[in-house]
Amino acid sequence: MTTKIDIQSTAQMLMAKDNILILCHKNPDGDTLGSAAALCHVLTAMGKQAVVACHNRIPAKYDYLNIPVWDGVSEIDYVVSVDVAGVNLLGDTLSDFAHKIDLCIDHHGSNGEYAKCLCLKADYPAAAQLMYEIICEMGVEITPHIADCLYTGLITDTGCFKYSSTTPRTHEIGARLMELGAHHTMLVEKFFMSKTRKAVMLEKYMLNNLEYYYDDRCALLVLTRETILEIQPDPTDLDGLSSMPRDFEGIDVSVLIRPLREEGSYKLSIRTGENVNACDIAAALGGGGHLRAAGCEVVGSIETVKKAILKEVENALCQ
Amino acid sequence: MTTKIDIQSTAQMLMAKDNILILCHKNPDGDTLGSAAALCHVLTAMGKQAVVACHNRIPAKYDYLNIPVWDGVSEIDYVVSVDVAGVNLLGDTLSDFAHKIDLCIDHHGSNGEYAKCLCLKADYPAAAQLMYEIICEMGVEITPHIADCLYTGLITDTGCFKYSSTTPRTHEIGARLMELGAHHTMLVEKFFMSKTRKAVMLEKYMLNNLEYYYDDRCALLVLTRETILEIQPDPTDLDGLSSMPRDFEGIDVSVLIRPLREEGSYKLSIRTGENVNACDIAAALGGGGHLRAAGCEVVGSIETVKKAILKEVENALCQ
Repeated sequence: MTTKIDIQSTAQMLMAKDNILILCHKNPDGDTLGSAAALCHVLTAMGKQAVVACHNRIPAKYDYLNIPVWDGVSEIDYVVSVDVAGVNLLGDTLSDFAHKIDLCIDHHGSNGEYAKCLCLKADYPAAAQLMYEIICEMGVEITPHIADCLYTGLITDTGCFKYSSTTPRTHEIGARLMELGAHHTMLVEKFFMSKTRKAVMLEKYMLNNLEYYYDDRCALLVLTRETILEIQPDPTDLDGLSSMPRDFEGIDVSVLIRPLREEGSYKLSIRTGENVNACDIAAALGGGGHLRAAGCEVVGSIETVKKAILKEVENALCQ
Repeated sequence: MTTKIDIQSTAQMLMAKDNILILCHKNPDGDTLGSAAALCHVLTAMGKQAVVACHNRIPAKYDYLNIPVWDGVSEIDYVVSVDVAGVNLLGDTLSDFAHKIDLCIDHHGSNGEYAKCLCLKADYPAAAQLMYEIICEMGVEITPHIADCLYTGLITDTGCFKYSSTTPRTHEIGARLMELGAHHTMLVEKFFMSKTRKAVMLEKYMLNNLEYYYDDRCALLVLTRETILEIQPDPTDLDGLSSMPRDFEGIDVSVLIRPLREEGSYKLSIRTGENVNACDIAAALGGGGHLRAAGCEVVGSIETVKKAILKEVENALCQ
């Protein structure tokens, strides 16, 4: 049974605890890591023991967050998950904690209510916005480093104040964090103004090989095994690639097909504009996801896989 | 002789005048148009006659600003330029006004001090940020439509709060304009989340034709007359194109060379990373601009133009 609690109670609860483990979601992004890091540094500054755990190794890109990672041994008395909508998102190495989470701090409307206490703000664009308010409530000083952690979450989950989830309050907190010393330029350049060589190569490949269907309402890209071997892209590069054609004028559905490790097996990423349900398309092929971003895995030759997904796209476009 | 005036005096001056013509810079962008539109609507709401003029036809993309364009005939008693750093940026059709500008409202450090009065805030990322403060000083209601005009200037000149010129105050004004009714999602999608077919074609051309110099620290693109004739890009597409390679890993200077109407004459757009001064490079070839975004026009064959700019880039990279 999950008890829903407000920001004040959350702050009080955290201030009363010690030996705290903070859990991030698997395949971590800037919001789960930035929010967890901010909380961890705040608790440490209060003289408490606090550490962070994540199923995946934390990408080098986030080294500046300076996250103290749990050694898996030291004593834990209180477990907090941050930006984790469901226990399945903890990942295998943290699955033992699934039913032992004392407090969940989250902003996903789809939260699975798995923790003893839940502080949820589904209308907040980032967990970092909620974490900022919890930290303010705790009355702890927000150092420039903590401001960096929170600003990281804020900008990565809003596409740098672009997504429609952005609110006036998001801008206000952005202003406040900059005043507190967040390194705006460094962070924005890291996440939004630096395209790796691999990402540039992928984009070039995409523009030269994109196929158009259904009166150019569907853009489909097949990433061949040869191209992947040649470019050796990072997973984050591929995520960006699948969304790109969706923002092209007239495109309602964007599909990226890439080979999985097993020969004859493909991963499909589906991204849609506001009038088409990506989750429905993916579900028809055994997958799932969100309204505008979904995925599935399909077995077959590249021809049959293309035929299968295009049929589902056609169905979706006809609705 | 130019008199520098503050925000208060600017507001008082505007409130005392009537039959006002507001001038934008040529090849207008969201900041010059959004700021001019906001001022025009505010003056009109005060019962004054106010109109806007621009050398170019205002692109259809900006129709929602609902700008009352000067008919070229109606009486003008007071001329205000907005976001116009120098008289050469007025364009031929407005060159008659070069020495008749009563007030200039600008945020370019390189302002040519051509107007009788100048309200300049060189540390503001957008003219719209200054215009917001002038309008607040005038004590006029900021309607949702005026908020849209100002938010347009704010997001287009900061790359949606990405550029290093963004300050806490920029975020505060962003918050305030959203509260006042600015249509954040509509504006952000229009300027940052929809790529026209022409823009996609240009990007493909860019990725296939980009030249690299100086240990790949400089990326240079020559847009040929043939490509322009084939794609027929909008000026706004070209603006985006010049900034793109700057964000590629390792690139310190990005140069876009495009032919001007007159044979043998080229427009160069220079974009730089934080360690290189774009304005210095442009100034060496008779141009100007900002620290990280500048431009110039050079006469010659494409070979001599390339040689000239690459020499200046080399100088800048050696510093």
